Amino acid sequence: MSVRIGIYGYGNLGRGIEAAIRQNDDLALVAVFTRRPPETVKIRTEGVSVYHVDDVLSHKDDIDVMIMCGGSATDLPEQTPALAKHFCVVDSFDTHAKIPVHFENVDRAARESGKVAIISVGWDPGMFSLNRLYASAILPDGKDYTFWGRGVSQGHSDAIRRIDGVADAKQYTIPVEQALAAVRSGSCPELTTRQKHTRECFVVAKEGADLAKIENEIKTMPNYFADYDTTVHFISAEELARDHSGIPHGGFVIRTGKTGFDGENDHVIEYSLKLDSNPEFTASVIVAYARAAARLYKNGDKGCKTVFDIPPALLSPLSPEELRAKML
Amino acid sequence: MSVRIGIYGYGNLGRGIEAAIRQNDDLALVAVFTRRPPETVKIRTEGVSVYHVDDVLSHKDDIDVMIMCGGSATDLPEQTPALAKHFCVVDSFDTHAKIPVHFENVDRAARESGKVAIISVGWDPGMFSLNRLYASAILPDGKDYTFWGRGVSQGHSDAIRRIDGVADAKQYTIPVEQALAAVRSGSCPELTTRQKHTRECFVVAKEGADLAKIENEIKTMPNYFADYDTTVHFISAEELARDHSGIPHGGFVIRTGKTGFDGENDHVIEYSLKLDSNPEFTASVIVAYARAAARLYKNGDKGCKTVFDIPPALLSPLSPEELRAKML
Repeated sequence: MSVRIGIYGYGNLGRGIEAAIRQNDDLALVAVFTRRPPETVKIRTEGVSVYHVDDVLSHKDDIDVMIMCGGSATDLPEQTPALAKHFCVVDSFDTHAKIPVHFENVDRAARESGKVAIISVGWDPGMFSLNRLYASAILPDGKDYTFWGRGVSQGHSDAIRRIDGVADAKQYTIPVEQALAAVRSGSCPELTTRQKHTRECFVVAKEGADLAKIENEIKTMPNYFADYDTTVHFISAEELARDHSGIPHGGFVIRTGKTGFDGENDHVIEYSLKLDSNPEFTASVIVAYARAAARLYKNGDKGCKTVFDIPPALLSPLSPEELRAKML
Repeated sequence: MSVRIGIYGYGNLGRGIEAAIRQNDDLALVAVFTRRPPETVKIRTEGVSVYHVDDVLSHKDDIDVMIMCGGSATDLPEQTPALAKHFCVVDSFDTHAKIPVHFENVDRAARESGKVAIISVGWDPGMFSLNRLYASAILPDGKDYTFWGRGVSQGHSDAIRRIDGVADAKQYTIPVEQALAAVRSGSCPELTTRQKHTRECFVVAKEGADLAKIENEIKTMPNYFADYDTTVHFISAEELARDHSGIPHGGFVIRTGKTGFDGENDHVIEYSLKLDSNPEFTASVIVAYARAAARLYKNGDKGCKTVFDIPPALLSPLSPEELRAKML
């Protein structure tokens, strides 16, 4: 019997979830919920209906796990605790600094309802977090580094689009090769923000806009760009559409550390991702954790969890026996 | 209160465990057990005694987790089930094909005694297995590859040493760069044994030995070398001691896969290790899982587990709250 999954919010991530479910025989999409008029939302899975979010509670008994596909800024802090009162839920809440508060809110709701919630699932937070944890537990005398990219930062692209005279923009975060090499050498360098990443911007200006002024505004923007070496390219709307319509991303988690009675041996643990589609990969991680949420709930578990709490075997459709025989 | 750890067998791995325990404030070495006369075994930790394995049961109440440091060929299949009747145990059983049988034997013993056992801990099986599992659960439409090296294979070095006329030898397993590149490209190549790894041998011949005969015997040895491109270097005993006394190892687990409604997006997940000391790194993984074993036992769990069954948070000395705030 398949795990019956609902999608709550149908944007890039929701579409990625829909595609990912198709790759897993033991998972079935049963409903999509939207804040838009449902009849205006076309999905790709035949026989599955789109409902308004206001009707979600009438589907309580039809859905094993609800996947929350809203944004971290304002949607998930409200939606995940609200839905955890009635459903097992998985979200990709990614505002690192606010995870402890979000955890508490979701945990309270899920303990009351007796449901299982898994928050902050994806690749960072998510797979990168797991690799930071595993590597630091194995090499306590060491240091870890996370690099992001080459990939599109949605937040930075949005920040450029808000500048006067900008019609559209795409921003790439790029790890600095020399910094990666220094980290891999085991020298445990102290790296500034500027030394770790550069930022490359592709900007479509409105007609008659002052390009020099736009470039200066980007490069001096506090928090977003001022601390980085930033390159700005002005291109046409056609070039942007042709060359920069994808949402690639990726990155590296590297920990180096020492072992031995006198710290005489060096070790490097490196995990990296190279992703054509950030939302589709995130969705692929999430559906594996949706499988885990359904299994935990079936076993009588409840409350909020993160990737740190989930036994890896629960992510796989294979049985424990198959996993031991084939993958160990 | 520290987790009290015993070491059962004091070779390269046992010494690595002793060194790794020193790096973890919440773990304490309390006893070392050996088959040799205990007075002939000198350890590095002050105030800790060495006992004969025959006396192990008189230490039942002093030890929270026994770390099994024997070999996989003949020691662990006997010792781990035997000790699991009385202790929580962790071993590094690495004969992949025999893991299911070993699991059953250890599980039976540990369920009867009510103890927790974790088997096949290290990096392969171990961290590499975990990465195969995570990556395949995330990218079901994909293929994974494991490469080993550059590193010393003890089994292959031993095989060379058994050849007539060989005084000593060290064998390195080396992944083929072109194969790694082909895998990372996402082309999902079918690779033969020969295409994935080469073997490089450093051999000290006895005086008057027939070098051409030795080289031919190595290169044509079934299972060990015949299926590989093998290079043989004859060097002096001094050169072997000077340049090849370390036990480095490492490798790569790479999975590539597709997502999207039409499989239109490619992704690469890569995990790699570069280790100066194979036994010390293996030991570092094992002590983290010893911490997990102690916690599981304290929570009332019992029976045999593998890395697939252990929630990652149990490996870290940090609390769940600290992990969520700092590492997620």
